[in-house]
Amino acid sequence: KATSTSKMTENGVFSRDKVLTIDTMNPTVKNVEYAVRGPIVQRAMQIEKELREGVKKPFTEVIKANIGDAHAMGQQPITFFRQVLALCSYPELLNENMFPEDAKNRARRILQACGGGSVGAYSASQGIDCVRQDVARYIERRDGGVPCDPDNVYLTTGASDGIVTMLKLLVCGEGASRTGVMISIPQYPLYSAALAELGAVQINYYLNEEKCWSMDLSELESSLAEARKHCNPKALCIINPGNPTGQVQSRQCIEDVIRFAAKERLFLMADEVYQDNVYAEGCQFHSFKKVLFELGPEYSDNVELASFHSTSKCYMGECGFRGGYMEVINMDAEVQAQLSKLVSVRLCPPVPGQALMDLVVNSPQPGEPSHITFMKERTATLSLLAEKAKLTEQILNTVPGITCNPVQGAMYSFPNISLPEKSIKEAKAPDMFYCMKLLEETGICLVPGSGFGQKDGTYHFRMTILPPTDKLKILLAKVKEFHQKFTQQYS
Amino acid sequence: KATSTSKMTENGVFSRDKVLTIDTMNPTVKNVEYAVRGPIVQRAMQIEKELREGVKKPFTEVIKANIGDAHAMGQQPITFFRQVLALCSYPELLNENMFPEDAKNRARRILQACGGGSVGAYSASQGIDCVRQDVARYIERRDGGVPCDPDNVYLTTGASDGIVTMLKLLVCGEGASRTGVMISIPQYPLYSAALAELGAVQINYYLNEEKCWSMDLSELESSLAEARKHCNPKALCIINPGNPTGQVQSRQCIEDVIRFAAKERLFLMADEVYQDNVYAEGCQFHSFKKVLFELGPEYSDNVELASFHSTSKCYMGECGFRGGYMEVINMDAEVQAQLSKLVSVRLCPPVPGQALMDLVVNSPQPGEPSHITFMKERTATLSLLAEKAKLTEQILNTVPGITCNPVQGAMYSFPNISLPEKSIKEAKAPDMFYCMKLLEETGICLVPGSGFGQKDGTYHFRMTILPPTDKLKILLAKVKEFHQKFTQQYS
Repeated sequence: KATSTSKMTENGVFSRDKVLTIDTMNPTVKNVEYAVRGPIVQRAMQIEKELREGVKKPFTEVIKANIGDAHAMGQQPITFFRQVLALCSYPELLNENMFPEDAKNRARRILQACGGGSVGAYSASQGIDCVRQDVARYIERRDGGVPCDPDNVYLTTGASDGIVTMLKLLVCGEGASRTGVMISIPQYPLYSAALAELGAVQINYYLNEEKCWSMDLSELESSLAEARKHCNPKALCIINPGNPTGQVQSRQCIEDVIRFAAKERLFLMADEVYQDNVYAEGCQFHSFKKVLFELGPEYSDNVELASFHSTSKCYMGECGFRGGYMEVINMDAEVQAQLSKLVSVRLCPPVPGQALMDLVVNSPQPGEPSHITFMKERTATLSLLAEKAKLTEQILNTVPGITCNPVQGAMYSFPNISLPEKSIKEAKAPDMFYCMKLLEETGICLVPGSGFGQKDGTYHFRMTILPPTDKLKILLAKVKEFHQKFTQQYS
Repeated sequence: KATSTSKMTENGVFSRDKVLTIDTMNPTVKNVEYAVRGPIVQRAMQIEKELREGVKKPFTEVIKANIGDAHAMGQQPITFFRQVLALCSYPELLNENMFPEDAKNRARRILQACGGGSVGAYSASQGIDCVRQDVARYIERRDGGVPCDPDNVYLTTGASDGIVTMLKLLVCGEGASRTGVMISIPQYPLYSAALAELGAVQINYYLNEEKCWSMDLSELESSLAEARKHCNPKALCIINPGNPTGQVQSRQCIEDVIRFAAKERLFLMADEVYQDNVYAEGCQFHSFKKVLFELGPEYSDNVELASFHSTSKCYMGECGFRGGYMEVINMDAEVQAQLSKLVSVRLCPPVPGQALMDLVVNSPQPGEPSHITFMKERTATLSLLAEKAKLTEQILNTVPGITCNPVQGAMYSFPNISLPEKSIKEAKAPDMFYCMKLLEETGICLVPGSGFGQKDGTYHFRMTILPPTDKLKILLAKVKEFHQKFTQQYS
C-alpha cells in the first residue's frame, strides 16, 4: 500500500512516494493483456536494434509475422486510394493534369462534404454524411439489396474503436448480475482486453479445431448455461472470417448462431473486417446481416446486431489511417441516441481515415479511368494472399508434429504444435517458451497461442501470411527445421 | 426492468423486448454529457437543413461559434503541412518538381520511419520513433533547455485521447475511496464526460471570474478539503490557456498550483493545447513543465505531471487529423509500462496525424525554401485571431448586461450575461433557453455556460472567435441586438 512518507535521497533532495503507483492505479487496466504486441514482439524489436548495432546472431534479419500489418510487409497501397488522399490533403493538386478525373471527382466530393472544404475540419461525430451514405449503398450491394439506413452507420477509428464503443454500451452490473460477453476461443485479444478494462465477464466458447475452427451449437449452449450461473450474458461476438484461426464460417453455421442469439436473447457483434479476404474454393463470405434478413421478419425485426468493418485489412491493408465503420441493426432508439452522444465526446474519427473508407466502399467503377488499374492491383494482392495461404498450410502440414487447418480466409494460420513433454514440464508457458526460442535462434517473430486462448493441453502459434513469398518460404523452412530440432532436444 | 416476454405485432410477427435498452445499458454512459455538440448544435444542423429546403427564417445562414473548428470557419491550412501530407500519401509525387525540397525531405524522413515506407502501416503504439524525438526536441526548445526524454512522449489521437488514457490509469475505488479528480469550473466538458464514464468523482474548483478567470489557491484548498470527506482526490487538471474562458495563467499562479499539488500529493494534468494561442499584451505562455523545473529538484524530481498538446488548435487548426501528444514526467516506471501496454491495445494513433504532429514540432527553419511562406501564413493566422479576440471583447462589453473578460488566449470568449428575473423563473435552464432563442431568431449558434459549469446564479455562453471578421461582426451585432430585446421582453 502507498504511504505518504517522504525520504531524503543521496543528493539531499526530498523524494516522496508517487501518487500513481502500481498499487494505487486502476486495477482493471492491470488485467489488460494484448499479446499481438506483447513480450515476444518487444524482444523482436530489441533484436532488430542489436542487429543494427552489429551484434552477431545466427540470422541477419527479423521476419515479423506477428501482426496483420500488410504495408509493413511490402504490400503496395492501391494507387487510386492514395491519389485521392493526396488530392484531399493538398487540393491545389486538383489544378494539375497528373491525376485521373475519377480521382479528382472523388476528392472534390469528399472535400465538399468537409467543413470549409478541408479534411482538417472536424466531421460530424458519426462520420461525414456522404461517406455514411456510400457505406450504406455498399452494404446494400453486398447483401443483395437488404436495405441499409445511413443513420445506422457510424464511422470509427479502426474497427477496434467501434467494438470497444459497443461493449461500453453493453457492460454494467456487479457480482452475479455483471454483464457477460461470449467470445470465441481462440479470439483476437482486443476482446479480452476490452472486457478486462470494462470489468465484464469473459465467457469463452471454443471453436472446433477438428472441424476447421467452425462454431459448434452445443458448445455455445453449454458455455452459456454455465455462464448464467454466475453472470448476466448479454452479447455474443463472432469474428468471421476468423482471427487468429483463418476459417470462413458456412452459411448454415451463421444461421445457427443467429437462431441461438434470438432464442437466448443475446446481442450479436459480428467482426467482419476480413470480408474480402476469402481464398479457399467453396468458401464464401456471408454477412450476418444478410443471413439475418433471409431468416425472415421474426429474426430481422428483432435480433440486435452490430457489424464492424475496417480499412486496415482485405486488399487495402491501410492500417495506419485508422478507418472503419459499424452498422447497428434493431438497436433500441433511446440506446442509439446514447451511442450518438457517446461518440460526440471524442469529436470525430480521423477524417483521412473516413475519406479512405469512402474510397473502399465507392471504388472505381467500370468505365471510369482508374477502374482497370484498380482491379488489377486489387486482384493481384488478393491472388498473392490466396497463394500464400495455400503455401503456408501445405508446408506447415509437412512438419511432423504440426497440424494446420486450411487458411480459408483472413490473413492468419493458427497451427497446432505438439510440444515434447520435457518442454511442457520445464516452461510455465510452453508455447511462449517455444516462440521465444524460435525468435532467438531464427529471427522469426510469431505470437504464442496462449495470447489468443486455446484448449488446455493444446499449443499453437499465430503467424500471418503477409511476408513476401520469398521470405514466407524462408520463414516456413526455418519453422520446420526449428520444430524438428526443438522436438529432438526436449524428447 | 427488462422482461423476456414476446408479443405478437399487427403483422403477425413476434416482437421481443430488446436486449439492450435504456434500462439495461451501462448507466455510466447515460451520465455522460457533452454540450459542445449538444441539443443547441443539433437544432442548428436542423435549421441549416430547413434553410436548404427553402424554409423561410429571419436569417439566411447559421453562423456557428460553438466549436473550435478553425478550418470549418474558413481558416486556411498551412501550405507546407499539406504539401508534406500529400507527399506522404502518394510518394510518387516525390518525383515531381512541384514541391519545395524541404517538404520532400520531411516526407522522405517520415516515410523512412514507417513500416514498408507507407503511412498505411501501423506505427509503434507509442508513436513513430522519429516523431517522438522531434517532439522531445521541440519541448526542450520551448522550455529553455529542460531535458525531454522521447520515451516519455506518447503520440495520441488528438489531445482528448491522451487525457482519457491518463484518467483511465488514475481512476479506481468505490465509495469513500473512489478516485476524485479536480477540474476547473468552467471546464471543457471532455473532463466531466470522461469522469462520468469512468465513475470517478468530479471535484470542482471555481476560477475567479473577477480576476480574469485566474486560479485561486484558497479555492483549491477549500475544494480539496471538502472533497477529502467523501472521496480520494488524486489528480488536478488545468487548462492553460483556458477553455472556455480564454485566460492565460500567470507564472506565479502556475508556481502556486505546482506547490499545492506537491504538498497535497496530486497528479498534475496540464492541458496545454492552446500554447501558441496567446494574444494579450503582457501575457505569455508558461508550460507547467518549465515552471516545475525552475522550482528545483524538490519539485522537478517528484511532482507527477502529464502535459497534452494537439494539432487541432493554434495556428494549425487541423482538427480532422486527430493528432496530438502527451508527455509524462516523474511517472512511476511500473505504471508507465502499464500505460505502454494499454495504448498497444488500440494499435496506434492515426499515422497522418502523427506526421502532422511532426511538422508542427519540426516546422520550416530559416534558410529552408518554405520558411518565409510558412512564417507569413502562421503570423497572418495568429494576428487575425488576436484581432478578433480584441474585437469580441470590445463589442461584447458595449452591451448593457454583458461583461466579458479579455480573451488573452485560446479561441473563446465566455462572457457573463445578466438575465432578467422572468426568464430565469420561466426556464429550467435559463442560459440554454437564451441560446436556443438566439439561435431560432438570429441563426447564431453558441453554447450555454451550463455546458461548461458556472457559479450558481450566474449565466454565460461560450463563443469562439473563429468566424471570419465580417461574419464575427455580424454575429456580435446580432448578439447585442438580441440581448437588449431579450432583456426588455422578460423584464
